[in-house]
Amino acid sequence: MNTFGKIFTLTSYGESHGAAIGGVIDGMPAGLHIDFDSVAREMARRRPGSSALVTARNEADEVEFLSGIMDGVTLGTPIGFCIRNTQQHSADYDNLKHAYRPGHADFTYQAKYGVRDHRGGGRASARETAARVVAGALAKQVLAKYGVTVSARLARVGGVENTATEPDALCSEVQDVIMRAKAEGDSVGGVVECTVHGCPVGLGEPVAGKLQALFAAAMMSIPAAKGFEYGMGFAGADKRGTEVIDSWQSAPSDPRGIRAAANNSGGIQGGISNGEDIVMRIAFKPTATLLRDVHTVTDQGEDTVLKARGRHDPCVAVRAVPVVEAMAAMTILDAMLISRALIRF
Amino acid sequence: MNTFGKIFTLTSYGESHGAAIGGVIDGMPAGLHIDFDSVAREMARRRPGSSALVTARNEADEVEFLSGIMDGVTLGTPIGFCIRNTQQHSADYDNLKHAYRPGHADFTYQAKYGVRDHRGGGRASARETAARVVAGALAKQVLAKYGVTVSARLARVGGVENTATEPDALCSEVQDVIMRAKAEGDSVGGVVECTVHGCPVGLGEPVAGKLQALFAAAMMSIPAAKGFEYGMGFAGADKRGTEVIDSWQSAPSDPRGIRAAANNSGGIQGGISNGEDIVMRIAFKPTATLLRDVHTVTDQGEDTVLKARGRHDPCVAVRAVPVVEAMAAMTILDAMLISRALIRF
Amino acid sequence: MNTFGKIFTLTSYGESHGAAIGGVIDGMPAGLHIDFDSVAREMARRRPGSSALVTARNEADEVEFLSGIMDGVTLGTPIGFCIRNTQQHSADYDNLKHAYRPGHADFTYQAKYGVRDHRGGGRASARETAARVVAGALAKQVLAKYGVTVSARLARVGGVENTATEPDALCSEVQDVIMRAKAEGDSVGGVVECTVHGCPVGLGEPVAGKLQALFAAAMMSIPAAKGFEYGMGFAGADKRGTEVIDSWQSAPSDPRGIRAAANNSGGIQGGISNGEDIVMRIAFKPTATLLRDVHTVTDQGEDTVLKARGRHDPCVAVRAVPVVEAMAAMTILDAMLISRALIRF
Amino acid sequence: MNTFGKIFTLTSYGESHGAAIGGVIDGMPAGLHIDFDSVAREMARRRPGSSALVTARNEADEVEFLSGIMDGVTLGTPIGFCIRNTQQHSADYDNLKHAYRPGHADFTYQAKYGVRDHRGGGRASARETAARVVAGALAKQVLAKYGVTVSARLARVGGVENTATEPDALCSEVQDVIMRAKAEGDSVGGVVECTVHGCPVGLGEPVAGKLQALFAAAMMSIPAAKGFEYGMGFAGADKRGTEVIDSWQSAPSDPRGIRAAANNSGGIQGGISNGEDIVMRIAFKPTATLLRDVHTVTDQGEDTVLKARGRHDPCVAVRAVPVVEAMAAMTILDAMLISRALIRF
Repeated sequence: MNTFGKIFTLTSYGESHGAAIGGVIDGMPAGLHIDFDSVAREMARRRPGSSALVTARNEADEVEFLSGIMDGVTLGTPIGFCIRNTQQHSADYDNLKHAYRPGHADFTYQAKYGVRDHRGGGRASARETAARVVAGALAKQVLAKYGVTVSARLARVGGVENTATEPDALCSEVQDVIMRAKAEGDSVGGVVECTVHGCPVGLGEPVAGKLQALFAAAMMSIPAAKGFEYGMGFAGADKRGTEVIDSWQSAPSDPRGIRAAANNSGGIQGGISNGEDIVMRIAFKPTATLLRDVHTVTDQGEDTVLKARGRHDPCVAVRAVPVVEAMAAMTILDAMLISRALIRF
Repeated sequence: MNTFGKIFTLTSYGESHGAAIGGVIDGMPAGLHIDFDSVAREMARRRPGSSALVTARNEADEVEFLSGIMDGVTLGTPIGFCIRNTQQHSADYDNLKHAYRPGHADFTYQAKYGVRDHRGGGRASARETAARVVAGALAKQVLAKYGVTVSARLARVGGVENTATEPDALCSEVQDVIMRAKAEGDSVGGVVECTVHGCPVGLGEPVAGKLQALFAAAMMSIPAAKGFEYGMGFAGADKRGTEVIDSWQSAPSDPRGIRAAANNSGGIQGGISNGEDIVMRIAFKPTATLLRDVHTVTDQGEDTVLKARGRHDPCVAVRAVPVVEAMAAMTILDAMLISRALIRF
Repeated sequence: MNTFGKIFTLTSYGESHGAAIGGVIDGMPAGLHIDFDSVAREMARRRPGSSALVTARNEADEVEFLSGIMDGVTLGTPIGFCIRNTQQHSADYDNLKHAYRPGHADFTYQAKYGVRDHRGGGRASARETAARVVAGALAKQVLAKYGVTVSARLARVGGVENTATEPDALCSEVQDVIMRAKAEGDSVGGVVECTVHGCPVGLGEPVAGKLQALFAAAMMSIPAAKGFEYGMGFAGADKRGTEVIDSWQSAPSDPRGIRAAANNSGGIQGGISNGEDIVMRIAFKPTATLLRDVHTVTDQGEDTVLKARGRHDPCVAVRAVPVVEAMAAMTILDAMLISRALIRF
Repeated sequence: MNTFGKIFTLTSYGESHGAAIGGVIDGMPAGLHIDFDSVAREMARRRPGSSALVTARNEADEVEFLSGIMDGVTLGTPIGFCIRNTQQHSADYDNLKHAYRPGHADFTYQAKYGVRDHRGGGRASARETAARVVAGALAKQVLAKYGVTVSARLARVGGVENTATEPDALCSEVQDVIMRAKAEGDSVGGVVECTVHGCPVGLGEPVAGKLQALFAAAMMSIPAAKGFEYGMGFAGADKRGTEVIDSWQSAPSDPRGIRAAANNSGGIQGGISNGEDIVMRIAFKPTATLLRDVHTVTDQGEDTVLKARGRHDPCVAVRAVPVVEAMAAMTILDAMLISRALIRF
């Protein structure tokens, strides 16, 4: 229930305001020199407090690796790691002990488990994604050896396209949309686009293990994700076949001998990668945490008002970008390992 | 790779033009009187040849149950079943032996396996979904005992909303869109909407087993699916938090004591069902099989033209409706079984 | 619950006296020319009625392959198969509808499921192992390409060593033990020894995926198996370290550069194959079906006597030999595929 | 590969001389008050240095719980934990950098991964079992709520029966066997017997999920385990059916209405628990680490001698007792959760 993947796996743990979050990465290739700086850079991209556009919580997010690495080289054994939760203001959350925040998992956790960690969302907090970024950072280092790159960008916020072309950059219009929402104690949704470049032909398994199904599950597990599409996506549902058919062209210079004239299929056909770029988009809702008083109900069924307080993240889609990359990297590496397993005479 | 689910599972097999398709259903509750007529009705909904709107292939789709049932009652043991492929015109496909149809899985299967069944798409054919409908029909019969219903409808075709309200019905505008595409040898995409009603609170597991992730994987595994969304979906990404926040209201008459004022969350919060209707939408592309000559490339990298011939399905989204229901039913039943496993003191 | 393996998998179904038994084999390599005669030969080894030493039930055991193979070549897609249950004397079993046979699964199935197929043991019948032999026969054909062979023999029956050296042969002393038990309506237990020769170095995964743990699970799932050991086995528990230590010797002519002076480890160290022969032994109890009146209890808790009748198998260990081979072949192939998945820089 | 279980799972990590060992426990029931003292007591039973009979390595084995518990109560979310490796004499192992110890996993790890942590066996060290004892201690606390107890004892050492009846006690003859081996720098094997008492009827799943197969896999994954048997075990293979048949008797006072006259089946029939005690025995080899000079080979294929040095454990079976219990507890709890999942109408 807390494990991603089949061969390359991440089993994660941790509540937002417990002692630590962390995980165990299994299936990591042996003999890889880990670039720890690169891991730290990925963590920094996800970290709150990095700019005015995101929440002010200042997490150090220092990753301690506990096993699976000796003298900087992976052993092929599981990599345990943990990230201490250093800046915990547990008392800040006393008002949530008995009230269910709207649009959060407070009610569902209480109903399912009969008990919950009310502090900052507990296990349902987006803080959990820090463990994914660690595993994704390692997966990226493996993929790089095979010429596979994963890059995501914020494509749209609150209906406004992001015209900035640099990774992690936002055009001024998008910045305005976010700052306006922040100033009003409101939040705004966004769409993240992710591209896998250099993916080998043949990843993904038919029927239940289709590559797009694996990506969809990975992306829809990210907090606040409400939609997933790849290739022509939802737009394709409004089209005619003649408009979007993916013609093959001979391409002697391509190792495959052919190439797609367009890439409406989004790099996957019949659940299997065809060597074109894999392009997907993930919709994130506006976070439900607002800097406003909100009406809600207590666990005794009584009406109550939650007062605006604390820090908040006006657009979670901003920080979702490295998480999307991490999930894509883990998914594609796992698919690659599974694909390696299969024999072809 | 060909198994759906964790406790309630379907392992399926079969190529479009091999001897048979079928599967093994495991985790089926014991002691259930199977309604075989109901299974046949679900199969009839999916079957080609049922109207002018779908492909003319006339599959009998007779399901033979081979185990797990005695005197009409389930034994709790695995249910093996098969559906013979009776109407096979294998020679019809000789022109595809060495050509890769655009927008299909011909190239990717050949590249992955070094061999492929070229007849009608082989394992990548939508015929494979018949096995899903069998398992889904059984899952629905279990869910009905718990008051859970799953119903899907074609919500939109080629950009035109379906205003018909009866299940499986299409308004005349939508029928026109499909018949026009058919007349022109073209195809058209569509969106299927699926609602799970009566879902108990507490299904779905945090982080990797989130209910929406399970649904997304299930739906994105259906042939021609290009996108998945639930609740506010992609539209939510363009909104402000204040527009879509899911306020709780006290509801003494509801067993939960509370209810959501709106249901923008789509019945799931933090990956766990909250008792509201679960609403999701799946985008299907226009089928890549057209009744037109299409340019493509052979497995020797030579340009060629595939002549229009045979039958074709102008809008696969029509026949996807019962498949979406089947996948939803299997997913929710599996989540229910997993949820039962967990102890809460 | 009815699936063996992780990458190379068999999902089986079927009751002894239902319509059929069968299964789905997934993860089968693509491009392999299947030797169907070899499959039939393996089935013949397991089949009842083949000699006076085993039960007289005459099962044709004809395997029908339904998918995954075209023109005799595997496609890499799942292989569905079924074996019809042709010789069913269901009425023979009416006396078992409400009585629990001693030493069988009648009570436990009834208690677990609230319903059971009382005819010939239903799902708990050894007939289920026919599906394993099919999958094992295919696994062996793959292993043969890599120079790996699996061979089992009946090592001991009722305490008497089998001195015959030919595969599937029994020395006259062992034949006597069995025929004497048969004449007296009694049964007798036995030990099967299985050797995997030519196993590559490096199969098996540390801790939870140790090769001996996979073998143990595979073997202990065979009906009537009561014990598993490998290498020095239980005898090693009575020894001193100096008696059984597995010294390494340099061996320039061996591809590994070294070899074990003895092979007390049984070919596995730390859960990983070391290239020596893997040797294991499995204990089978005397079958609980006797040709004698036996006292037991009905499902109403009343004392009753089951009259001797029908056919019986005086030594199930005889027919277990090909089943042990099948499980070993499936296990080693699965371990090989998993091992292939892992990257080593 | 490092995960035990299906619903109640332990994913472990850690090398003997790395920073820490630990794991993630998933599927833990919510709402349980953890008895931390009881966890510490289980750890103390496994810990080296506790008596003259075991190795002198003094591990503090302090368990730090990092998540999944708030105010001493489980949340139903994954429980991350770690145990620091405090007493590391890494330099002690420099002589093993390039030599393969006989009877250990040095060669197989090097061959599989191309790299290994040579210090104290790395991942293959028995130190890894500390994580299992933590998870087993929590599993036991859950089982206790259902009246299920798991208890193991050292049944035999070097061929001498242990006549002591207290848990964890050794009769003087067995103590002598161990001390003699120790004095001679030698080691000795042993057999651990484990009994599950109070097990509910109906745990275990047919065919691939048989309870004895799950136990066998769990036990055979313990370092130094060479054999597993349950009920009549290997002795049954030498017997006649009439000697060991498990007659049912009516038992009005038993909730089941019946009881087994003997318990030769060992509490499991057809892979499913029948409510009798589950009794199993596990054979442990004499540890391969001797306090003697041993001949071996370097990773360059050259003959060498490893000098006797350091600490050693004359009989690993002594410390295996709590590990066997832990594995049994985890296995039975997992089977219980799976069994709960299944519906029976």
